[in-house]
Amino acid sequence: MSELSAFLKEHEARHLEELKELLRIPSVSTDPAHAGDVRRAAEWVRANLEAAGVPATLHETAGYPIVYGERLDAGPEAPTVLVYGHYDVQPPDPLELWTTGPFEPTVRDGRLYARGATDDKGQMFAWLKAAEAHLAVRGKLPVNLKFMIEGEEEVGSKHLSSYVESHKAQLGCDAVVISDSPMFAPELPSITYGLRGLAYFEIEARGPEMDLHSGLFGGAVPNPINALARIIAQLHDDQGRITVPGFYEHVRDLTVEEREAWAALPHDDEAFRASVGAAGLRGEEGFSTLERIWGRPTLDCNGIWGGFTGEGAKTVLPAVAKAKFSCRLVPDQSPEDIEAKMAAYIESLAPAGVRVKLTHLHGGRPILFNPENPAVQAARRAFGAAYTAPAVNIRGGGSIPVVADFSDILQVPVVLMGFGLSDDRLHSPDEKYDLVCFYNGIRAATAFLDEYAAG
Amino acid sequence: MSELSAFLKEHEARHLEELKELLRIPSVSTDPAHAGDVRRAAEWVRANLEAAGVPATLHETAGYPIVYGERLDAGPEAPTVLVYGHYDVQPPDPLELWTTGPFEPTVRDGRLYARGATDDKGQMFAWLKAAEAHLAVRGKLPVNLKFMIEGEEEVGSKHLSSYVESHKAQLGCDAVVISDSPMFAPELPSITYGLRGLAYFEIEARGPEMDLHSGLFGGAVPNPINALARIIAQLHDDQGRITVPGFYEHVRDLTVEEREAWAALPHDDEAFRASVGAAGLRGEEGFSTLERIWGRPTLDCNGIWGGFTGEGAKTVLPAVAKAKFSCRLVPDQSPEDIEAKMAAYIESLAPAGVRVKLTHLHGGRPILFNPENPAVQAARRAFGAAYTAPAVNIRGGGSIPVVADFSDILQVPVVLMGFGLSDDRLHSPDEKYDLVCFYNGIRAATAFLDEYAAG
Repeated sequence: MSELSAFLKEHEARHLEELKELLRIPSVSTDPAHAGDVRRAAEWVRANLEAAGVPATLHETAGYPIVYGERLDAGPEAPTVLVYGHYDVQPPDPLELWTTGPFEPTVRDGRLYARGATDDKGQMFAWLKAAEAHLAVRGKLPVNLKFMIEGEEEVGSKHLSSYVESHKAQLGCDAVVISDSPMFAPELPSITYGLRGLAYFEIEARGPEMDLHSGLFGGAVPNPINALARIIAQLHDDQGRITVPGFYEHVRDLTVEEREAWAALPHDDEAFRASVGAAGLRGEEGFSTLERIWGRPTLDCNGIWGGFTGEGAKTVLPAVAKAKFSCRLVPDQSPEDIEAKMAAYIESLAPAGVRVKLTHLHGGRPILFNPENPAVQAARRAFGAAYTAPAVNIRGGGSIPVVADFSDILQVPVVLMGFGLSDDRLHSPDEKYDLVCFYNGIRAATAFLDEYAAG
Repeated sequence: MSELSAFLKEHEARHLEELKELLRIPSVSTDPAHAGDVRRAAEWVRANLEAAGVPATLHETAGYPIVYGERLDAGPEAPTVLVYGHYDVQPPDPLELWTTGPFEPTVRDGRLYARGATDDKGQMFAWLKAAEAHLAVRGKLPVNLKFMIEGEEEVGSKHLSSYVESHKAQLGCDAVVISDSPMFAPELPSITYGLRGLAYFEIEARGPEMDLHSGLFGGAVPNPINALARIIAQLHDDQGRITVPGFYEHVRDLTVEEREAWAALPHDDEAFRASVGAAGLRGEEGFSTLERIWGRPTLDCNGIWGGFTGEGAKTVLPAVAKAKFSCRLVPDQSPEDIEAKMAAYIESLAPAGVRVKLTHLHGGRPILFNPENPAVQAARRAFGAAYTAPAVNIRGGGSIPVVADFSDILQVPVVLMGFGLSDDRLHSPDEKYDLVCFYNGIRAATAFLDEYAAG
C-alpha cells in the first residue's frame, strides 16, 4: 500500500482540482433547464474513468444516461466489485443562503463548499481515483471492477431498476459498494449493514358529499376530520407500539450483540434532541433512540389536510379529510404483508357513517446484510488505511431503493461505505465535504480493492 | 286586513318588478370592484323606503353605509319594531353554473332566480312593502317602525355592532324582526327562538424545529400530526360526548315540551342523510338529529393541515401540524367559560415532547328567547294571513352574530321570521326565491305590524 499511498499523496492537489471541475457542472437532474449540464457531467465521469484506464461508455435510458465502465483483467480467480454512485445533484435553492456560489467550489477552513460536494460527486469520485491509483502504480487492478454511475438519483432513480434487471449478466459481481452516506461521527468510519423498508399509505375519510355549514349540520352529520383523527390516534397504543394486529409478527429481534454495540456508539440523546429542536424525544417504550431508528418499525404521519386551512375562522363541516402516513419496516417484515394487515385494520376502525379508503402508494423491503460478510470485513480493514478508530457497523433508518434493487436482482451484498459527515448539509445551502474526508475516502477506497482481493 | 290584502294583491306585479330592479344591482360586498354597486343598492333601498313613506338616510360607516329609516307616528302607546336586513350579496361564482345570469333576475316555474333573491334582498323587501301597504291604505303605521338595512352582512357585519352600540337610543325598540332564514318546510311557517353560540379555536402542535426525514428520525422524534390526531381523538368519547371537563356544566336541558314539539316536526332522518350524502348519521347518543343540531353543544374540526400534501409520497416527519375546530354552544354556556376549560384540557392532553398551542379565534354566545314573548306570538298569528298550517317554533344550529348584538345591546327579543325555503341555494349558483314565498312573506310582514300592535 505504501506506493499507492505515496501516489495518492503526490496527486492530492490535482484530485481536488478535478473534483472542482466536476462540481462546476450544475447537473441538477430535476430541472429541465439543466438537461445539457447533466449530460456534460455524465460525459465528464466517462472521460475521467477512461483517463484512469477504465473503458467506459454512456448507456442511454429514457432519462439521463448511466455511465458504465469496466476493467475485468484481474482474472477469473479475483472477485468482482460493482461501484455505484451518481453524478446528478439536488437543486441549489435557496441561492441566497449560500456563502459562495453552489457551482463555484470553494475551500474554506479545510472544507470544500459546493452543491454535490458530498452528495455524491465527492464520495463517488473516491472510487475513480482508487482505480486510477492502482492502474498508475501497478498497471492493473486487484479485483475485476465495474462502475455504474447514474444521473437520476435525485429524481428517484426511475430508470435504474429496469436497467439493472436487463443488464443482470453485465452487472454480475460479488459485492456492490456505494459511498453515499455519512460516517456515524467524525473520525469514526462506519459501514451500514441494514436499512429499513417502507410501506407508504394515503387514507381518505369522507363524511357528507359536500362541505356543509358546521352550525346547520354539526353534531348530526359525521365529521371526516374528527373521524380521521380517531383512526390515526388508534394506530399507536400508549406505549408507542403500533396496534395493527400482527404488525410485529415478522419483526426480527435485535441481537444482544447489536444492542450492546449500538449502546457503545458515541450517541447522546440530549445532543440529538437539541439538534432537531424538539421539546423531547418519544418512541416505542423499551428501546433506545438508535434502536428505535435502526431496528424497530415505526408509523409516522407525513401529511394531513382537509377543510378550511386559510386565515381566520370558517365554520365548515368538510366533506373529506386525507392523510399520508408511512411505516418504516425492519427485517423480516414485508411491505405486502403490512399493506394487507393495515387495510384490514383500517377497515375495522372506520366509524359508522364515514367512508374510509386506504391506498398503498409505495413500498420497499428492509435490507439486512450479514455484517461479517467478506465485503464488509474488507471495508472495515480498508478504513484502517485512513482512520485510527476501528470502523463500526451501523444501520440506517431510511430506505435506499437501489440497495434493495441490487440485493434483489443481483443477489449480492451491498457495502455502504460512507465517507461524509452528518453535518455536510446535503440538499441544503452550503453543502460541504471536509477535505479530510475527501482524501481519507480516496485512501479507503484504494485500500478496499486490495483488501477485498485478499479475501 | 282585507283592504291591505287587496292592496297587496293589486300591486303584486309592481312588487316583483321592483325587487328585480334591486336584484339587478350586483352589490357584492366582498369584491372591491363592486364598491359602486353596493352603494347603489344602499341608495335604492333608501329611495324605496322614502317612496313608501318612511324617511330614510344613509349612515356612513368605515365600510358600506347603513340605511336607516324610521316612522314613529304611531304614538307613544304603540310598540316600536326595528326591522333588520341586508342589501349586500354573496359573490356569484362559479358563474358557469348559473342557468341565467346571477344579476339578470328571471322567473322560471314560479321561482325567481338571482343572486340575493332570498338572501336577503327578497326577504328584506317584504318589510318595505309592508310599510308601504299600511301607509298607502291607511296613511299611517300601527307601530312605530325603524329600519336598519346594512351592506356588510356577507363580510361579517364588521361595523354593525359598534353602530348599534353607539346608536342605542335611536335604535331603541320593543322587538327586532329579521327575515333572513328558511321555513322548516314548504308551507310550514317557522319562527326561530334560539340559536347556538360558538367558540372557535386553532390548535398547533410542534415536534421538531424543522421538517425531518422520516426514515432518519422517525420513531425517535415526536410527530406533530400523530400528536394532533391523538389530541383531537380525545375530545369525544365513544358515545359522541365531548370530554372537556365541565363542558356540559352550564348546558340547559331541553324541556319535555321542546322535545315533543321537535319530534312532531316533519323531519325524516333518512331523507336528511340522503340530502347530505353521508353514509350514515352520527352524534351524541340519546338525542335525535334535531336535538343534536338545535339543542346540544358540539365540537367539529373545521380544517386540518400539516406536512406533505402533494401528489405521491414524501417521507417527511413534519415540524408542525395545525387544526381549526369549533364548538357550537347552547344556553347557558358561554364562549369565555368554554375557552378556559378547553385551554386547560388541551394542555393536559399535550403529549411529552410536543409543544401545543391553542388560540381562541372567535366566539359568540348562544341565544334563547322565550317562545311565548309577545313578538313571537304576533309573528305566529301574522303567518296565519299567508299560510294555513300554524307556525312552528324552531331553533337554529348556527349562530347569527347580529342577533346576539341586538339581544345584548338593545336588550329586546329578536324574532326570526323566515320566508325562504331550505332549498333556496343561498351562496350557491341558481339562488332562487319561490314567488309563493315572496308574496306570502309580504303578506305576513304586513299582518305582523297589525298583530304586534294588537299585543
